[in-house]
Amino acid sequence: MTDIDAMLSPYIQAVEREIQRRVPPTEGGYCGFYGMLHYHLGWANADFEPEVGPRGKRIRSALCLLTCEALRGDFVPALPAAAAVELLHEFSLVHDDIEDGDRERRHRPTVWANWGKAQAINAGDGLYALAQLALLGLSEHNLPPDLILKAQQRFNETAVRLCQGQFLDISFERRPMVGPDEYLAMISGKTAALVGCAVELGGLVAGASADDLAALQTFGEALGLAFQMRDDLLGLWGDPQRTGKPAGNDIRKRKKSLPVMVALAGEGPASACLREIYARRTLDDRAVAEALALIAQTGARDQVHTLAYHESERALAALDRLSVPAERLAPLRTLAEALLERDY
Amino acid sequence: MTDIDAMLSPYIQAVEREIQRRVPPTEGGYCGFYGMLHYHLGWANADFEPEVGPRGKRIRSALCLLTCEALRGDFVPALPAAAAVELLHEFSLVHDDIEDGDRERRHRPTVWANWGKAQAINAGDGLYALAQLALLGLSEHNLPPDLILKAQQRFNETAVRLCQGQFLDISFERRPMVGPDEYLAMISGKTAALVGCAVELGGLVAGASADDLAALQTFGEALGLAFQMRDDLLGLWGDPQRTGKPAGNDIRKRKKSLPVMVALAGEGPASACLREIYARRTLDDRAVAEALALIAQTGARDQVHTLAYHESERALAALDRLSVPAERLAPLRTLAEALLERDY
Repeated sequence: MTDIDAMLSPYIQAVEREIQRRVPPTEGGYCGFYGMLHYHLGWANADFEPEVGPRGKRIRSALCLLTCEALRGDFVPALPAAAAVELLHEFSLVHDDIEDGDRERRHRPTVWANWGKAQAINAGDGLYALAQLALLGLSEHNLPPDLILKAQQRFNETAVRLCQGQFLDISFERRPMVGPDEYLAMISGKTAALVGCAVELGGLVAGASADDLAALQTFGEALGLAFQMRDDLLGLWGDPQRTGKPAGNDIRKRKKSLPVMVALAGEGPASACLREIYARRTLDDRAVAEALALIAQTGARDQVHTLAYHESERALAALDRLSVPAERLAPLRTLAEALLERDY
Repeated sequence: MTDIDAMLSPYIQAVEREIQRRVPPTEGGYCGFYGMLHYHLGWANADFEPEVGPRGKRIRSALCLLTCEALRGDFVPALPAAAAVELLHEFSLVHDDIEDGDRERRHRPTVWANWGKAQAINAGDGLYALAQLALLGLSEHNLPPDLILKAQQRFNETAVRLCQGQFLDISFERRPMVGPDEYLAMISGKTAALVGCAVELGGLVAGASADDLAALQTFGEALGLAFQMRDDLLGLWGDPQRTGKPAGNDIRKRKKSLPVMVALAGEGPASACLREIYARRTLDDRAVAEALALIAQTGARDQVHTLAYHESERALAALDRLSVPAERLAPLRTLAEALLERDY
């Protein structure tokens, strides 16, 4: 267990208990319905028997709780918001897996692979509704109703942004080329929006001022963007020992990722060569290695590096703007820096 | 235009305008995303050009608005709730069409038939999120925040019940027999819950007492159940000229409907014969006619009649319990009686 894992452990345990409180048990006539949710959440096997299965990293909820604690010295009132954010994330994973045709998630069959697409769509809808109810659980913490309504508003605006991002992502599947700006709009909806919302809700529950809320949202969104860009770089040049995937894996799968989109959109000869390679029916190991070299040659690798660095700086600068003593922000900053791992 | 249509027209026009206010226009980078929603809602064709296409009957929102008006003399503050109920209903139709593999809805291709299942799942999710935001629009009507939170709570509890009902419905597909009680649990989630919610939200916005809210919920749920049972009877014995479907259509399609489930579960010789017919690979016209006769013979037709009559009476009795003068309830009662059309 790293230092970060040890630091996060109490928060992640607390949010897991909160999520468990918000999802009904696998009993009675709807056992099969809630069973699918328990399975997806890593609480049960495919026969709906309790087990400790693979679970999400709960990074979003950790950010939410650490933010609330930094601002008001206590994370407990933010638990319903943290649970809601995770449930919304899990809902989107269940539907994404159907939409992308992915049969595996966290080393197990996906919900649709086990129970068919019809049940999986409906199970995702159930997680969505439970996310809403989890958020309404804020009313159990003596927070002003106005504040809870504001949280509901921001949460559902974020849900719309998730759908917009997913719309772009699905649209991209059919297109050989996607402009870098379109790609950024997509990850801004699919990844950054929910990270921003998690942090903002933590601040909202803590009673943050409008200025602080704006800074927190910037912090979260920039962090989400930087994190996704870093992930894109790792998908191409990450150490296979660390990422668990073969080098150049995202090229072989022709995954739309920012360095590839930037390189394909370029005007020089390296970009032209890359487009020629991407036009081939299949990509062998040699083509993958060539493509990787060409992407670096176009300058796309450096450009994405610079963009990611810029977003990281923007995130950390937003933290500095908060009207909170720096020492109280230390855990949040530590987590942000760990997520950004600015050593790539 | 019947008298009922004329009576409902101003309410339905008002809710349509409200829904249009709550769904973003088909412009910019997300034109295709909102275009699918406009198409499904009957506002645009498949090229996203404005047109007056087929739309939902908006019965649920009419019930919501008439309830509010009966209790406080004004339906305007209930418009966000009415729009939210319709958007939730439309969301469930988009997903149901995928889950059931239906390629047509309201005489047009369904969203998934036009744009594929991935985009359609995501478009449904978008309608769901917009439904939540529509409901939050109650805050524009100077209603107490506590009341809006209560509305959110009830709305999302209803969304969970819709998913539970849909879970049962999908599960039934794989089974030759479904007990009448299970079938009732299914329609209670899929149909009655949202009708009950529509009526209850109308009362909530009107500031109804707890007793009145309980009566309204009973009224709505019983109305929804009776309506569905009547629909089931019409699917078997309805006048083809009125229903637009051939007689015995639901038998040919082996649709799980209450009279069939009651008859199949029976113990007498007619039930045994019916089970034998249902075990056949295909059902020709003669088998359909035989099955219809057998269902009546088991007494199932009369039983469902009686059940529907009982629910209708329960609905109207609940109206009588309201602390509101009978004359103010007249429009709501007229609509309920028209929906129940107790002439079958």
